[in-house]
Amino acid sequence: MKHTRSPAREVLFPVGLISGDFSFGSVSSCRSMDSRAGLAATPRALPYYVAFSQLLGLTVVATTGAWLGLYRGGIAWEGALQFNVHPLSMVIGLIFLQGDALLVYRVFRNETKRTTKVLHGLLHVFALVIALVGVVAVFDYHRKKGYADLYSLHSWCGLLVLVLYFVQWLVGLSFFLFPGASFSLRSRYRPQHVFFGAAIFLLSVGTALLGLKEALLFKLGAKYSTFEAEGVLANVLGLLLVGFGVTVLYILTRSDWKRPPQAEEQALSMDFKTLTEGDSPGSQ
Amino acid sequence: MKHTRSPAREVLFPVGLISGDFSFGSVSSCRSMDSRAGLAATPRALPYYVAFSQLLGLTVVATTGAWLGLYRGGIAWEGALQFNVHPLSMVIGLIFLQGDALLVYRVFRNETKRTTKVLHGLLHVFALVIALVGVVAVFDYHRKKGYADLYSLHSWCGLLVLVLYFVQWLVGLSFFLFPGASFSLRSRYRPQHVFFGAAIFLLSVGTALLGLKEALLFKLGAKYSTFEAEGVLANVLGLLLVGFGVTVLYILTRSDWKRPPQAEEQALSMDFKTLTEGDSPGSQ
Repeated sequence: MKHTRSPAREVLFPVGLISGDFSFGSVSSCRSMDSRAGLAATPRALPYYVAFSQLLGLTVVATTGAWLGLYRGGIAWEGALQFNVHPLSMVIGLIFLQGDALLVYRVFRNETKRTTKVLHGLLHVFALVIALVGVVAVFDYHRKKGYADLYSLHSWCGLLVLVLYFVQWLVGLSFFLFPGASFSLRSRYRPQHVFFGAAIFLLSVGTALLGLKEALLFKLGAKYSTFEAEGVLANVLGLLLVGFGVTVLYILTRSDWKRPPQAEEQALSMDFKTLTEGDSPGSQ
Repeated sequence: MKHTRSPAREVLFPVGLISGDFSFGSVSSCRSMDSRAGLAATPRALPYYVAFSQLLGLTVVATTGAWLGLYRGGIAWEGALQFNVHPLSMVIGLIFLQGDALLVYRVFRNETKRTTKVLHGLLHVFALVIALVGVVAVFDYHRKKGYADLYSLHSWCGLLVLVLYFVQWLVGLSFFLFPGASFSLRSRYRPQHVFFGAAIFLLSVGTALLGLKEALLFKLGAKYSTFEAEGVLANVLGLLLVGFGVTVLYILTRSDWKRPPQAEEQALSMDFKTLTEGDSPGSQ
């Protein structure tokens, strides 16, 4: 195949930035299945990008904690501090854990497909549960204070994210973990699942930015324009959130970093499934 | 190739939602180059998605105009209304035109590569010029009013978008339109160009949401929570912006909607370029 590139050529460029192909843009990224079968070597630059994403993600969580601790009095379930449970829970659940759940298929390349799927699903469950704690916190806080609910763009986007996240999880579970769905149906739904997963993650990052801005403007008001320390820290947190989102998206969409299908899966699909259904599953 | 699917199979599913493959997620989206050579038929669902994206994009522009006209006194270069030039220009330039520039390669499938490239570059120039008018408007307005500049997360993200946008345009121009860059270098840079193009577009949408929220909170303050008409309209505008971003990203990343390489390009690359450089360009 003329357009196939050897892995060795793909890491030639400095810092890996001009190397490889994105799923985003290139037909030339296609590679024959044969070269991906069996235990595949991890792409050389991938671990560094994953480590960088984890460093960014943890810095986002730590910076959120620092912001709440330094300028908002810390965290408690009772009293005025209950509100602060909301940003911390959402950042841990719907930013850090959701981002990591998307990366599971890039990081665990040689585990069985089933193990990887279960880990992916479990991380999303943890993310959802922690996010729900954050949602309960803000509704409870609003109720006690007599504040209105769901009037802001942040809350509208947040509600949209939660509904889409839950639907995506349910549909993903029924298609990929239960044995009912045919291989043909799975391989047609898979790209939609991946696209909407990425879109929901990006919308979560956007919603976090809106919430951060809202919290800043409600408290600082005109003082925001005097470069108050809290405002500057929160702006830095905003840029870190953007950086985490872009890094996860980069790792997720690089076509030469996708999880290769394994020999066991290929054999299974050929022996048992394609004979009856005339289709064959790719990797996820 | 076992994983190649015929185009006929990819439009079988209802509303095209469960059909086809994304670049995002699937190795099985690879298709042999031969089936893409020559004049390719436009995928059946693509025109509807493109029409929907244009409808959404124009609705975003119209809603921004309606918001500024109904609740902000309209637009003028002098006086207090100068600020309003900013949101309208940014939405026309960095949302609608930038989004359309990304779609050029999906929409113009059978024009020569050079024509499509020039249109892509020109749309980005128009977008940048209109955005610069919007940026000058807000800095000029701030100067006249004695307001501080560049203190908010919106302004930091906006500055980042503008710098990245300009750098991406310059590098894109020097790699793809000038004859200096080798085919090998072009095909390595292309996926990075596409990824960062999409990332800059998404960051533009996020920055617009932050700006909208800022404008609302500065004016409405606590009245935002009483479901004021302006707040509700602005929230709807925010959701429309999100919808436009997601739709453009969907069209851009569906692997079976990518522009096929044309016979002329393949012939050219084989006859003149690969002989000397040992590489061959894919499609963009």
